[in-house]
Amino acid sequence: MVKKEKKRKVVLASGTFDLLHLGHVKFLEEAKKMGGENAELVVIVARDNTVKNRKGKKPVMPEDQRRALVESLKVVDEAILGLEDFSIDKVIEKIKPDIIAVGHDQNGIEKEVQKSIEKEKFDIEVAKIGRFGKRELDSSSKIMRKIIESFNK
Amino acid sequence: MVKKEKKRKVVLASGTFDLLHLGHVKFLEEAKKMGGENAELVVIVARDNTVKNRKGKKPVMPEDQRRALVESLKVVDEAILGLEDFSIDKVIEKIKPDIIAVGHDQNGIEKEVQKSIEKEKFDIEVAKIGRFGKRELDSSSKIMRKIIESFNK
Repeated sequence: MVKKEKKRKVVLASGTFDLLHLGHVKFLEEAKKMGGENAELVVIVARDNTVKNRKGKKPVMPEDQRRALVESLKVVDEAILGLEDFSIDKVIEKIKPDIIAVGHDQNGIEKEVQKSIEKEKFDIEVAKIGRFGKRELDSSSKIMRKIIESFNK
Repeated sequence: MVKKEKKRKVVLASGTFDLLHLGHVKFLEEAKKMGGENAELVVIVARDNTVKNRKGKKPVMPEDQRRALVESLKVVDEAILGLEDFSIDKVIEKIKPDIIAVGHDQNGIEKEVQKSIEKEKFDIEVAKIGRFGKRELDSSSKIMRKIIESFNK
């Protein structure tokens, strides 16, 4: 009897991943789990200019370093920089994910993804990932605040 | 003919790994390469109190988060927290490394390792790892400086 090989599910996650911390890793681990055993996790790392346009400020770490650091994580199969001309439709057409994971603080992205799925009739599941615990320093802005506070002491 | 299995070389590296960046990953990758194919990389992550005693200040990220983040890197086989009562001899006896890798900014550790090897007659190679490129933001203190400067603008 030949065992039929199960298709490997592709999970897509995205983020800025500035000042990499354990909250990022937990988010990516939870995202990958959504694809079941043997899932492949592809991560889109936001370009400096995309972050600047959205949040008014470039990240601390430049985009090539953020991308390489994310790809050096065990849980990540592939990390790629976002498109210069950001478009959810184009990203989906390129990666062809089975699942798109969105973090607790990614409501904007979630809405755009839902809109794109409805419009293009993509067969994609959207998985919302909860926040991991109530730990300190699980966000880049908290880390920055701690650094600035300790400097001003 | 039975092929004799080669012993897997154990490489030991250590550091604080506060605000994880690409310089850390490159250091660990170079360290692992020193052990040849199939090497095992064990990383000692310094305790908060050890850093405070040595540098006068605790790291930004707490020790358990620094350890878990280092262990989530592809290149790392095992990351363990340093001993509360820091001693190079005890670390070497516990890990039994074939190679100890020291970074370009770890002269103090290098001297302690050399002294311990001579005193205890350990059969261990010490490998000095160069700095990776001349990139910006390959040190935690540079990253902190950038955050503080951008805040004061």
